[in-house]
Amino acid sequence: MAAPGWSERARELLQRMNSFHGAGSPKGLCLPFMVAGQQVGHMPQSVAQRLCQYPAVFSVAQGDKAAACVELNKQLASFEERTAAVQGVLKELKEQQAFPCLKEWREELYNVMPYFCDAPLFSMERAATPLLGVKRYGAHLNGYTWRNGQMFMWLGRRALNKPSYPGLLDNLAAGGIASGLGVRETLVKECQEEACIPASLAAQAKPVGTVSYTYVGAHGGIYPECQFVFDLELPEDFVPQVGDGEVQEFYLYPLHKVKEVIGSSDFKPNCAMVALDFLIRHGYIQPDDEPQYAEMVEGLHRTL
Amino acid sequence: MAAPGWSERARELLQRMNSFHGAGSPKGLCLPFMVAGQQVGHMPQSVAQRLCQYPAVFSVAQGDKAAACVELNKQLASFEERTAAVQGVLKELKEQQAFPCLKEWREELYNVMPYFCDAPLFSMERAATPLLGVKRYGAHLNGYTWRNGQMFMWLGRRALNKPSYPGLLDNLAAGGIASGLGVRETLVKECQEEACIPASLAAQAKPVGTVSYTYVGAHGGIYPECQFVFDLELPEDFVPQVGDGEVQEFYLYPLHKVKEVIGSSDFKPNCAMVALDFLIRHGYIQPDDEPQYAEMVEGLHRTL
Repeated sequence: MAAPGWSERARELLQRMNSFHGAGSPKGLCLPFMVAGQQVGHMPQSVAQRLCQYPAVFSVAQGDKAAACVELNKQLASFEERTAAVQGVLKELKEQQAFPCLKEWREELYNVMPYFCDAPLFSMERAATPLLGVKRYGAHLNGYTWRNGQMFMWLGRRALNKPSYPGLLDNLAAGGIASGLGVRETLVKECQEEACIPASLAAQAKPVGTVSYTYVGAHGGIYPECQFVFDLELPEDFVPQVGDGEVQEFYLYPLHKVKEVIGSSDFKPNCAMVALDFLIRHGYIQPDDEPQYAEMVEGLHRTL
Repeated sequence: MAAPGWSERARELLQRMNSFHGAGSPKGLCLPFMVAGQQVGHMPQSVAQRLCQYPAVFSVAQGDKAAACVELNKQLASFEERTAAVQGVLKELKEQQAFPCLKEWREELYNVMPYFCDAPLFSMERAATPLLGVKRYGAHLNGYTWRNGQMFMWLGRRALNKPSYPGLLDNLAAGGIASGLGVRETLVKECQEEACIPASLAAQAKPVGTVSYTYVGAHGGIYPECQFVFDLELPEDFVPQVGDGEVQEFYLYPLHKVKEVIGSSDFKPNCAMVALDFLIRHGYIQPDDEPQYAEMVEGLHRTL
């Protein structure tokens, strides 16, 4: 069989990153995770069984006609109470080595809410979100520049000691939005930390939309993620520098080479989606040339 | 009660334009419309009952475990045979005044296929697509220019004799993609016809993505639509002219005024979505200022 062409590989990338919506998804077997009467996640049954061994915090509720759901104990009424109770359970599960994803515990808190615009209901350890299937938010930067009238894009290569996707290509700067931080604030911080982009330059980054998707991870965890995307035109003489060591090296790629690595196993998948969105928004990929164009734009922007 | 703020109005626009996915949608009551074993539409039951009075063309099929669906007769094996058979039934229904939407019959054919990248299975009268709930595609132009370093957008006002949305604001140029035409070809044609933008200038328009949504129309028709979006920077001295009379007047609006009319009843809803997508892609609306930002981007790009 011939190797799949670029369109086919890009399509497979989007299908993989939206596997929660695809054939064979565990979606139908997940229980809605409810906090204060609002759904904030999708919980795999194996996780629900384990969490319900802590009935002061988690319990399965069965409505009249509604299907079962997992509820956070309603007596946990404040942000602080919920955060402390959930974090206590998760720490115990981590010590028991109950779930593989908890090995990546970072002591970094993410806010949990039905939508990004809502007040957070509680916050929780970043590494544990796939167990509850709650939404995660991040900020990603497309850094581009010009050489002889041609557009080029800066990409980073992740350090080999990163717990996730070591050694793969990444956007110029990117990071998750931790509890208490704003979108642009996160971006400017990551620009400084990862690529030594000074705050004055990072401040010129333009927000241009989001990329959103839900995938099922290796251990059955659920990852509904929304990345706020920024474009930053860099001066011709600017060269990013390795900062906190999360990136080992930077490359300046012409757009045809960026396109080539999208859908290859060398590019961290969600970063490849951000780069694909860039190529579409900048007219490098055109609807009359790319048969999958309409489906690609849809696949980059799934409703969480 | 206070009048809703801008965010709330924009959110209502997106909910209305995605009403097929919302509460009270007839989605669950529609039958999949199948051609050659592939789903190409969602058919309201009232339409299905009427069409099945033409059993040589349409029939309800009941699978083993599958729910019922409406099938185009499998003996209609070619594009031409299917087109002729469907068009014959629709013309009869038009003469019988069976459905209000057929009053807008235009003698304009749209291709029908599961996805835009697929070969068309047949073509059918544009006015009748909401009866079968098949996808429609179009091309829309954001025409912008600069005055004293500020960005402005050209908008048209639709003629009062247009059958749909008379007198409302519209993008600078836009039109449906008829059978046999390409995406850019459609855009260049509409630029010339509606706004007297010469082909040489229209050719500089940059494709920047799509806006996609599914709404339920006034008479229960289903409208899954995907608009290919183009941006065109116009010279400062360029002024669009009324062409074929579909537009009565053009306005040059500063972006704050464009934002203001989005979500007002003065802007044709899908064109307001295209303008909203422009304001987001150009960084005029920012994620830290607009609480609905993430949900807006999702609502502009629903999977059809």
